[in-house]
Parts: sequence; structure tokens; C-alpha cells
Amino acid sequence: MLKGKSIVSIDDVETEDFYEIFHRASIFKKTVKEGKSLELMKGRIMSTFFFEPSTRTRLSFESAMNRLGGSVISVSEAKNSSAAKGETIADTIRMASSYSDIVVMRHPMEGAARVASEFSTVPVLNGGDGSGQHPTQTLLDLFTIWEKYGKIEDLEISLVGDLKYGRTVHSLIKALNRFNNKINLVSPEILQMPDHFLNTLKNRTKINLNSNIDEVLQTTDVFYVTRIQKERFVDLNDYQKVIGSYSFNQELVDRMKDNAIIMHPLPRVDEIDPKIDGNKRAYYFIEAANGVFVRMALIDLILRGGKVE
Amino acid sequence: MLKGKSIVSIDDVETEDFYEIFHRASIFKKTVKEGKSLELMKGRIMSTFFFEPSTRTRLSFESAMNRLGGSVISVSEAKNSSAAKGETIADTIRMASSYSDIVVMRHPMEGAARVASEFSTVPVLNGGDGSGQHPTQTLLDLFTIWEKYGKIEDLEISLVGDLKYGRTVHSLIKALNRFNNKINLVSPEILQMPDHFLNTLKNRTKINLNSNIDEVLQTTDVFYVTRIQKERFVDLNDYQKVIGSYSFNQELVDRMKDNAIIMHPLPRVDEIDPKIDGNKRAYYFIEAANGVFVRMALIDLILRGGKVE
Amino acid sequence: MLKGKSIVSIDDVETEDFYEIFHRASIFKKTVKEGKSLELMKGRIMSTFFFEPSTRTRLSFESAMNRLGGSVISVSEAKNSSAAKGETIADTIRMASSYSDIVVMRHPMEGAARVASEFSTVPVLNGGDGSGQHPTQTLLDLFTIWEKYGKIEDLEISLVGDLKYGRTVHSLIKALNRFNNKINLVSPEILQMPDHFLNTLKNRTKINLNSNIDEVLQTTDVFYVTRIQKERFVDLNDYQKVIGSYSFNQELVDRMKDNAIIMHPLPRVDEIDPKIDGNKRAYYFIEAANGVFVRMALIDLILRGGKVE
Repeated sequence: MLKGKSIVSIDDVETEDFYEIFHRASIFKKTVKEGKSLELMKGRIMSTFFFEPSTRTRLSFESAMNRLGGSVISVSEAKNSSAAKGETIADTIRMASSYSDIVVMRHPMEGAARVASEFSTVPVLNGGDGSGQHPTQTLLDLFTIWEKYGKIEDLEISLVGDLKYGRTVHSLIKALNRFNNKINLVSPEILQMPDHFLNTLKNRTKINLNSNIDEVLQTTDVFYVTRIQKERFVDLNDYQKVIGSYSFNQELVDRMKDNAIIMHPLPRVDEIDPKIDGNKRAYYFIEAANGVFVRMALIDLILRGGKVE
Repeated sequence: MLKGKSIVSIDDVETEDFYEIFHRASIFKKTVKEGKSLELMKGRIMSTFFFEPSTRTRLSFESAMNRLGGSVISVSEAKNSSAAKGETIADTIRMASSYSDIVVMRHPMEGAARVASEFSTVPVLNGGDGSGQHPTQTLLDLFTIWEKYGKIEDLEISLVGDLKYGRTVHSLIKALNRFNNKINLVSPEILQMPDHFLNTLKNRTKINLNSNIDEVLQTTDVFYVTRIQKERFVDLNDYQKVIGSYSFNQELVDRMKDNAIIMHPLPRVDEIDPKIDGNKRAYYFIEAANGVFVRMALIDLILRGGKVE
Repeated sequence: MLKGKSIVSIDDVETEDFYEIFHRASIFKKTVKEGKSLELMKGRIMSTFFFEPSTRTRLSFESAMNRLGGSVISVSEAKNSSAAKGETIADTIRMASSYSDIVVMRHPMEGAARVASEFSTVPVLNGGDGSGQHPTQTLLDLFTIWEKYGKIEDLEISLVGDLKYGRTVHSLIKALNRFNNKINLVSPEILQMPDHFLNTLKNRTKINLNSNIDEVLQTTDVFYVTRIQKERFVDLNDYQKVIGSYSFNQELVDRMKDNAIIMHPLPRVDEIDPKIDGNKRAYYFIEAANGVFVRMALIDLILRGGKVE
């Protein structure tokens, strides 16, 4: 039961909740595609507090609330706000929760969302906090896999790119690891998944560390590619070399399973060649669009319990 | 009658209007708490023009308009807007008033809101102009007192902290002074209420200048504490000394009247110890939340005359 | 038929569409003036992506969508957004179009809106791209003329001021030139309309280059004045001289035809003396307010086909 709950970490979402979210997201996807309007959140307000910018996450949440018939109040540059006058997160979130029925927060500091959820009088959705969690991204990733395969277990999933700093892959692997999935980690040495993080996972036997893209190319069901940030490299030549070997292009795609899909949390830069955008395996735009439907489901389940009207 | 009026200064609000606002705010508070949605402002638009940032004031107004079923268009950083191309306040406000049914403006320059109200074709609500007025803050402060005591007269009220620059206390004392209240001014010497301002007040005999917190602690009904800004002090030692003597902590609260309340326009920094947040006398979060209901009442009374549907 | 179309350039609007837009805008103007609320866009979302700030254009679009009963999600400083992480316009617009039903974009780069319209899965409205087009400004300008004269042909129209950089006059002259209008170009030498632009126009015989304000003052039906930017002048004395001769003041207005109107895309600075704001020929505020009604018409015709309910 998600009703009344805050979602700070993907661990806050129980296994049975996943499927409830997916089913509800499917229904909302159909409703929106048919151009029907909803009034489930009529009179309700979401506040979005973004202490660091994230256009994609913010707009996706705001679109979701609007699609449900609710309203939004928004601080897209919260660092210029009361916080700049020395206000604590606790006080800021108390304000937010007295102005709205649900709060979405993004913050550069790991743990900020947990603090917020403790002081808020309304549910808090973590829109990403530092190198911590980004649970709604994980939910939309899982929904996209579920939509394709009808399940989120017994699959082979390759996480590719920046596995060290990439917040989305940390949230995702935690969730995938709960189920019986084979997971391949494919990354340059300096961007490998940290040991201290890997140690928090339960089923380590199903995880192949230090995989090579060529080894997993023909067996993988889901490629999850992340952006490799130039800024991580001291030497730009190293960046060029890495990008060269991790770029998803036509040649690579042609060697994949017919049924495989390629996902990416976006924005992408050089990791995926725009020439493959039209390929049937390119799922990253579908994935991005799914963000709205999954967030609609989550808002509805949290504020209304998702009961069918 | 507030219908069609601009609210630039608390002086624009007549005594009988106060009680109409309070009653209407009470009704809206009940409606919102019950989760009922309203459509009183359906099809109406509020524009918020903030030439200096004020998250709390802006979001509170926007929440109020949304709670009433209306829409909001917003400029949170108006200094980057047309004004930057050399446009006058007169022309900017003409634009705002041709796009919306009511305008909320905050501006760093005293008198800006008055100018705006003269050129606007729709009502203007002053969201604070320089060291000038901040009338809706005063209304929510008064409503909070009225909710507690059932009246805004015959009370002993101590204003504590920065009485020199604090815009909210200037608006508030003007209003309190209209009624038969005893007012104590408690502040460090360098932050005393300016003489030129005190001279504008009518009933000066009811005002105790240079009060000491210990003297008034056991007789005060309402403590109104304001933020003391570090930047006001040349010597940080002076700031530390002042904060030391004006901080509301458990020891101080224990000596207050059982029935007393502590208010603060927020954000607070060091003036109020978070440890007393759970004390029954701590009214600052209730006060902040009341901002939405008072602004709902004001918008409704101005745009619809507040008639009951 | 505008249904489902993007509007990147005024050339995308066919002649018969002009009149359909004008009629629909008239109806919406009446509806809004009467305080009636509309639900034509209920459940629909507009996203506004402004890669350079333009308060007037953005708020006017957002007001229009709200007046129609729709919602808005907004990025007023898109340069701080995903684009800053290296995302292409194509990817940004794909995101926008998966979150909303119609996208308004403003971009500093000429041609950006065309690119956006090619990758978007929903209609794109160009809110100005570099020195390129600003078609909705042109439509509201034409509507204002049509409202006054009942036609947009067989008129004498003088374009005054910065005809070199002024994006609005380029869009406007293209449209006016389609009909049988006499057009006078009045500008300082350094701000004349560029030859390469003039060469794109069809009926050059109806255009009087290098007109003098005194020559055209008594025959002109519509004066369209644009802002002359100080920054264009190396020598500020030159600016002062130019402003001196192009300023619309009482003396100039008194010599105009009784029926003439003065328009300006705003913001104005020194080109129009505020003392003539009350003159019956001053149409620039009416013009600005018309922006909302014309954009309502456009959104409605594009998303619904404008059918009467």
C-alpha cells in the first residue's frame, strides 16, 4: 500500500507495489493517448522544489500532476530561495507541505530527501538527491521493461557506461537485484560501480562485474546506457577512447538480439548515435515518455490509494 | 468592501474588512482541510511578478489561487524580464493586467506597488515593496492572532528583534495600533524602530519603547519575533551577543504565560531554537500555513466580492 | 486548415487561415471580456521552452492556454536545462513533445524552430528564433489592424525605427506584402531593412524605401514603431539624434490622420512618449492585450480544429 507514503528510495517500494504502479501506469497511458481528461487530482496541489535544475524530472512530474487534473506550484531554482537566507531543509519542507498536498524535491545533497520526508506533513517524492537515490526514474525504467517483456525478472540486463557516478543505475540495480535477473556491468575502469555500493546488494552471484560489451551483446535483453561525462576525465584523450568503445551505433545494434531494447535515462550526448533512433530496439524516447504515466500512477496511488472511480 | 480594490498598504484595508477577511479565511481553511475542491476562480488568472525573489510569498499566493480553482502565470525573476530592456513599472504592469485578472507584485523599491496599482487595469496585491509595506503578511499575522484569541484588540503584543529593517513589523504595528493593544518593542539598540516611522502611528501611549524581554515575558499574549540579519552588524561579535539574548529557547518559553503564542514571519535562523517547535506556544508554522487561507479570502473578496455560492 | 500544424514562419499560415484566426480571436476576446470560463483545452498541456527570456511572449501564451482551460509546464531559462548538458534541440523537443500536447519555443538561433518542428511529435509554435521569424507576433499585429479597419489590405502602413534587426517587422512586412498594401520604410540609415531580406518580398513596387516620417505622416493608416536599441550605436550622440527624430510625441500625433493608429510590439523605451498613451490613436496596449486572444485562437485551431461546441 502506497497511500500516504513518501518515496525516498526504491527500497520504500514493496514488490507488490511495483505491479500496482505498472498496471495503473498502463491505464493512464491509454487514457492520455486517447486524449481523455482526468479530474482525479482536482483541487490538489503538487509543489516541486528543485535545489538543482533537472528540467526532465521536473516537467515530467508537473505534466503528470496536470494530466490528473491537479495544479502545480514550482521552485525551479530553489537555491535562490529561502534556503539562501539560511533556512534549513526541515523548515523549507514544512513550508512546502503547508502549501500543497504532495512535494517533489531534488537536492544536490545525499540524504536530503530522507530529512525532508521526516519533517513534511504530506508525502515527499525524491526527485534525486546527490549521488543518492532517484526512485521515480527507476520505476519508469522498470515499467518500460515490464511493458516490453511483461515481467521484470529472469532477464539479462547490461548496465553500460558510467556506473560510478550514475545515480540512476544505482537505484536500478538495487531493484533489478531483488528479482531473478542476470546483470552485466560494462564500464571503463575509472567508472566502475564502487565496491561499497556493490556490497549493499543481496544476490551478488547474478552480477557479472567487468563485463565486456562484445561478450554480452548477443545475450542481453535490455541495454541500459548512461551518459559518460567529459568532466570525469583528466585527460580528454581518455574520454575519446572510452566514448569510442561505448557508443551505440548501427554496427553494434545489428549484432544484438532481435528482441533486445536499448534504454538511456537521457540526456544522451555521444553514447548513442542518433542514426539508430529509428531502430525498433531504440526505447529511450518511449522510456522518457513513460515517466509521465508512471508518475501519474504514483501520485494517484499515494494521494488517493488509486481506487477506480 | 474590498471588491475590485488593490491592496498596496495595510491602510487600504478598512476595519470591517479585517473581520470579513478573517471569517472567509476560516471557511476556506475548513474547506481545504476537508480536501474539498473549489471552483470560485475557474477561468480566472493571477499573475505573479517578483522583481526580487520571495519563495514563501509567491508560492503562498499561487497555492491560494490554485486552491480556489484558478490559474497562475508567473515571473519569479522579473529583473531578467522586459524591465531589463528598460521598461517602466507602468508598462510592465499594463502588460500583466492585460494577461490576468489580478496581479501580485514584489519589488525592491518602496512605492513600486502604489505606482503599479495606478497603472493597472486589474487589482494589484503588494507582495512587499522595499522597506515599505507587506500587507498580506500583516493580514495573515492578524488572522493567526484572531484565530487564537477571537479578537485583535485588548492584547499585549511584544515585537522582538529587528524592528528597524523588518518590513513585516512595520505593517503589523500600524494595524495593531488601530485597535486597543499594548505593544512592547524589544530590540537591540542598533535595530530599534525608527522615530520617523513611530511618528506616523496614532496611539503612541500604548507603545512601550525599549522594552526588555524579561520585563514583558510573563504578561505578553503574542510574541512576534523577526529574523536578525547577520549582515546588519559590522562586528560579528555584536551579532552573537544580540542573538544570545534574543533567542527563543526552552528556558524562555517555560517562563511565558500558558496561553501565550510565539509568531515569526519566517524564515528563521537563530532567533528560535528548533527544540521548541513542538511546544504548544509555537505558532509560526500555523501562521505560515494561514498565509494560504488569508490570501484565498482576499482574492475571493476582491474578485468576486466573496458572495457565498 | 491549421489543425495539427506547426507554425514556424508566417509563411506557414495560408491566407484563408488569417481570417479564420481573426474571427476566432474576436469570439475569444468577447468571451474573456464577459468573464466567461472555457474548457476547450481541459486536460491538455502546453509546454513553453524559452532558451532566451521573453516575459511578454511567454506569459501571453501561458495566459492563452489557461484561458482555454488548459495547463502549462514551463522552462523560462532553458539554457540552464538539459541543453546545458549538451543535449541537441532534437532531443529536447522530443522530451517536450512527450510531456505536452503543444510546444512553444523561443531560441536565440535562427532556424531552431524549424528543426524543432521536424523532431516534435506535437505541433510547435515558434515564439521567436534569433533574427528569424516571430509569427504569432505578426498574427496579433495583423489582428489589431483587422479589428480597426475590417481588412488587412489596401492600407498605407509605415514601419518606423529599427528595420534591420527588428524581427517583428520582418515577419510583418512579409505578411502585409501578400496583400495590396502600400508600405513605407522609415528608419535611420544604419538600421535600414537589409537588401537580402527585401529581395525575398514579392510586390516590391508597393514598398517605399527610405521614406521620411514627415512625408508619410498625413497619409499613413497604421504606424508600426519598433524599439531602437542603444547598443546598436557606437556613438551615443548618434542614438540621441535618431531618437530625437523618431520619437512619437504629441506634436507628431496631432498631425496624423484622425483615423490613424500607432502600434508597437513593446517594450518601448524612448520611441513613444508616454504622454500620448491616452490618445485615441495609441493602439499599442490594445495590440499587446490582443496577443492573448490571437494565441487562444491559434491553439484552438491547431489542437481542436476550432470547431464550435
